[in-house]
Amino acid sequence: MLEGIRSGNRVVLGQAITLIESKKPEHQTTARELVEACLPYSGQAFRIGITGTPGVGKSTFVEALGNLILNQQKKIAVLAIDPSSQKSHGSILGDKTRMNSLSAKANAFIRPSPAGEALGGVARQSRETIILCEAAGYDYILIETVGVGQSEVAVHSMTDFFLLLLLPGAGDELQGIKRGIVEMADLIAVNKADGERLKLAESARRAYRNALHLLPPQESGWVPPVHSCSAIEGTGMEEIWTTVLDYAHQTRQNGFFEEKRRRQAAYWLDETLQNSWRQLFLEDTEMKAAWEHVRQQVITQTWSPFKGAAWLMDLFAQKHKL
Amino acid sequence: MLEGIRSGNRVVLGQAITLIESKKPEHQTTARELVEACLPYSGQAFRIGITGTPGVGKSTFVEALGNLILNQQKKIAVLAIDPSSQKSHGSILGDKTRMNSLSAKANAFIRPSPAGEALGGVARQSRETIILCEAAGYDYILIETVGVGQSEVAVHSMTDFFLLLLLPGAGDELQGIKRGIVEMADLIAVNKADGERLKLAESARRAYRNALHLLPPQESGWVPPVHSCSAIEGTGMEEIWTTVLDYAHQTRQNGFFEEKRRRQAAYWLDETLQNSWRQLFLEDTEMKAAWEHVRQQVITQTWSPFKGAAWLMDLFAQKHKL
Repeated sequence: MLEGIRSGNRVVLGQAITLIESKKPEHQTTARELVEACLPYSGQAFRIGITGTPGVGKSTFVEALGNLILNQQKKIAVLAIDPSSQKSHGSILGDKTRMNSLSAKANAFIRPSPAGEALGGVARQSRETIILCEAAGYDYILIETVGVGQSEVAVHSMTDFFLLLLLPGAGDELQGIKRGIVEMADLIAVNKADGERLKLAESARRAYRNALHLLPPQESGWVPPVHSCSAIEGTGMEEIWTTVLDYAHQTRQNGFFEEKRRRQAAYWLDETLQNSWRQLFLEDTEMKAAWEHVRQQVITQTWSPFKGAAWLMDLFAQKHKL
Repeated sequence: MLEGIRSGNRVVLGQAITLIESKKPEHQTTARELVEACLPYSGQAFRIGITGTPGVGKSTFVEALGNLILNQQKKIAVLAIDPSSQKSHGSILGDKTRMNSLSAKANAFIRPSPAGEALGGVARQSRETIILCEAAGYDYILIETVGVGQSEVAVHSMTDFFLLLLLPGAGDELQGIKRGIVEMADLIAVNKADGERLKLAESARRAYRNALHLLPPQESGWVPPVHSCSAIEGTGMEEIWTTVLDYAHQTRQNGFFEEKRRRQAAYWLDETLQNSWRQLFLEDTEMKAAWEHVRQQVITQTWSPFKGAAWLMDLFAQKHKL
């Protein structure tokens, strides 16, 4: 499979990702080995997170940007993460259908994530999928999320550049966006700047630009610009792409790119360990019940969180003679 | 000691907090028992976090607000958290001296946190100190931080209301503020709106108000207002206090107040458990060395974070026959 992936065989790549997503233990073992085998060949792509609420035109935007990249003889992989799609308005299948023009291209690979998964699982799968896609030689990885849940924090922690799509409007276009996402953005694009919305989009762009100047600067020194575009008409897309490339160039020059990658790797080690510790407690039915009991005591303010945690750790230590 | 605290004896309260801050095991055992004994009498105060960079006039602001509350026959406790004060410009001793007018009042209690502590320790101590102060009958707890580090996230997670102080200026006053803090604020106050800075403060206030309208709304439905004030001249302070009381009334009415408290309790249980798990690994020299080795493998992209975490968990399980 490693050879298939490395030779750019999209069918094998797709099968490998299915292994990553599988819940069967034997599949997981194979998947783990495959990911580690791909690891030395990964890391060279530029990873872009794209988010925005349903209705902002995300798929059209990704398609327009994707075609622009393809025209420069680069290979792109598009991953869509939407853990909430089963219950929310975000429809990955709908998106996928609409990305037809992209999926027909030989240098593009499109893959939606399975719906209804827990966030931790989706995050791990996405990170591993990135590794496989990079080993397969894709130059740019586009990761799409819906912008309403916790998945944006996860995607922000696995990408080099984070792009927020907004609609032209007077502030109310943010109703669906989770707080904190605006501050994570490396670029804001006001989409659907066409026809009657052109004027509205321009004033929205100015308002956001002024607002971003009032947010603290990024650690990298990068000041997130605000662009307007119409993905459907193709206007403004070149400028956005130039900005992305500028960022890539600038952060690679000043070392921030590598530093961010190292921090992200350390972050995911930490996150995974925390999840593993949690699993260790939850797999033991007695510990799980004790945890639920403690949580109730703490929430009702009968116990302090510190007493609750100490009690749980003592119970665990006793059980396992630590 | 419980009786001393409950009867409002500030000397006993101070001694109890010293026990909480002590590193001696016997002190910690006593402190733990004391906190649990105080817990049933805690929770009734309104907890206010106040942050802003050095130079914003935080101490003068806290003193002005404190005197305003005291004039309404209420009792206040002021806690200052500054884990970085040993190395940074924030000087708690300086602040404390400047709060002389407040510390002379019978209904006020002022307590700086020990400098140079790890954040986890400071967070636990602050939460426990809140419990003791509430058992002592203080109506309002003001918790002051420097606004440049991680401590703001901790304070935000233990207070009912979060107030951000800014200087009049054209955006550059945010240079020292950590990203994400603006979005945590329930109220922004542009301080030092006096003399020649009056006009500047008013335009800063308008700019921030416009910018905040472009951030997603708070879950509680509260739209964070922007006020200007001069703590040194006492102007604008009444309006700020009225807003705080409005918020308290509104969130108590719609149930958000209690819901937030419950979430905060659950959050601290989680945080404390994670720290305990981390400690469990770090206390074992072999595990600690293995962890450092894995971190290096992961950062240099030799291992994936998932392989690293699985390897560490396996080692731990083997050692303890889990």
